Amino acid sequence: MLRTVAALMPLSLVAASDPPPANPGPGEIIAAAPKKDWARIPAEDLLVMELAPDVKGKPRRVVIQLMPAPFSTGWVDNIRKLATAHWWDDTAIVRVQDNYVVQWGDPDAEDEVRAKPLPANIAKVPESGYVVGLDAFGEAVADRASEPNPWAGPDAYASTLDFFRGWPLAGNGESVWPVHCYGMVGVGRNLSPDTGSGAELYTVIGHAPRHLDRNIALVGRVVEGIEHLSSLPRGTGALGFYETPEERTVIRSVRLATELAEAERPKLEYLESTSESFVAYARARANRKDAFFNIPVGGADICNIPVPIRKITQ
Amino acid sequence: MLRTVAALMPLSLVAASDPPPANPGPGEIIAAAPKKDWARIPAEDLLVMELAPDVKGKPRRVVIQLMPAPFSTGWVDNIRKLATAHWWDDTAIVRVQDNYVVQWGDPDAEDEVRAKPLPANIAKVPESGYVVGLDAFGEAVADRASEPNPWAGPDAYASTLDFFRGWPLAGNGESVWPVHCYGMVGVGRNLSPDTGSGAELYTVIGHAPRHLDRNIALVGRVVEGIEHLSSLPRGTGALGFYETPEERTVIRSVRLATELAEAERPKLEYLESTSESFVAYARARANRKDAFFNIPVGGADICNIPVPIRKITQ
Repeated sequence: MLRTVAALMPLSLVAASDPPPANPGPGEIIAAAPKKDWARIPAEDLLVMELAPDVKGKPRRVVIQLMPAPFSTGWVDNIRKLATAHWWDDTAIVRVQDNYVVQWGDPDAEDEVRAKPLPANIAKVPESGYVVGLDAFGEAVADRASEPNPWAGPDAYASTLDFFRGWPLAGNGESVWPVHCYGMVGVGRNLSPDTGSGAELYTVIGHAPRHLDRNIALVGRVVEGIEHLSSLPRGTGALGFYETPEERTVIRSVRLATELAEAERPKLEYLESTSESFVAYARARANRKDAFFNIPVGGADICNIPVPIRKITQ
Repeated sequence: MLRTVAALMPLSLVAASDPPPANPGPGEIIAAAPKKDWARIPAEDLLVMELAPDVKGKPRRVVIQLMPAPFSTGWVDNIRKLATAHWWDDTAIVRVQDNYVVQWGDPDAEDEVRAKPLPANIAKVPESGYVVGLDAFGEAVADRASEPNPWAGPDAYASTLDFFRGWPLAGNGESVWPVHCYGMVGVGRNLSPDTGSGAELYTVIGHAPRHLDRNIALVGRVVEGIEHLSSLPRGTGALGFYETPEERTVIRSVRLATELAEAERPKLEYLESTSESFVAYARARANRKDAFFNIPVGGADICNIPVPIRKITQ
């Protein structure tokens, strides 16, 4: 199906047997990246969410990578406690709003009588946790994060853009913060100064809502199985909430991967942001010269430079 | 459900009965826009795609607005001919790639024997049609399009950003081109210099793939029913193509709205880009000061300023 396949063909899917192209695309650069450029995601940082099976009885597993310190540590700590308490078991996907978010948690959260109580050790986190001062980083990172990246074009939401341990970061020269790209996981909240506990979570399933940066805590990203969330029927209520309990998808369990048997744990690695392979990949995303493209732009929206993440096969 | 609703609450959904807020959000500005600021989308510019009903027997109608001249006119003319010839009847959705595109057309397009022949009057369109010189516009538009907008922040893909008759435009001071935002419809093609006929179409269901701007023809946008495409099961083949015919969604028919009985025609209007209401709306998108937000950014990605489109009710 050459014509239809070639349409919009991301070269990441070119067969390895093809001869290397003159201008390698992002996909070839990833495929050629040496093992040393990949970093394993620790099991301690992975949440495994098992949804009820689909209509055909197929299991639906969604894997979330929690954000590393120094970002959103207060909320991430709460989320580890909620997972350890098995708090999300038998909660549900309650909202699917097209081109925006999928949200899950306790469907009765607002019912004072029926709401599921939170564990006693859940902390209130201040809004100051939305950003991190550059002084919290080592010199190297602080220096990098304090200037725009060569591969990234200008940005409407920040004066600096960078990647830190595989995560996109925006900044203003004084502080940095995580970015609302597709698949990022954030914390539902009430109006300021409430910042949310971490019990109500959402993931982005549309165009990056960057106006939420620094306004909501980002705590992780979906690294496997996002299609089980993004392809759910859209809710027909206000904001995409489901109008009846029957429409919701039940969450069977959410576990830290460390609580699973070794064989059950997701094994994933990401392309280290500081590696030569990543820099080459990001430059290629910003300057598409592979066969399908006529006009290399010379810049890229940071959310169009998704950090490569893959299963560990060997 | 205050907490969960408030989470990420787009104020477009605040009830009209609520008192007007001190800092109106985009939603209130749209709701308050006078009728004169809205422009009807002509039936001549609407394509109505009827998918096979869903598993519950519910009809699935997708409405596409074709791009106005002077943009992509060669491909849009082809698409009008294909629709008039009822060419898409009994074709199918063949590809759903998460965070990228939904693509439809003839599943046998690449099979020389079984491929559905195109009408004789389909034109080959040159790559020069991807952009339009500013000289093609009236002074007013050319002047506007030649400078960045006050509400839009800098952009990684273009030096100018504007809206023209309700469509987002990017430019470089010499020419302008339509932008790959969520819901935009483009023309699948083979490698350059092929530009596609318009028979194979896709719509964006993820983060704006702006690197495709000027590399592929954009011919319209989905203005109603995109959820029938964006929530389809993702394809498990390369590029999100379905691996078996059974997975495809059949397209029952595609018609120009003018071919439908008056009562069957979609009646839609958009907020005119040159209206005061639109400027206020776009500024509000770039400077969120409504109750949910702590930090107004002062700029917005053009794909985060979706042009308001609604059903005509009176």
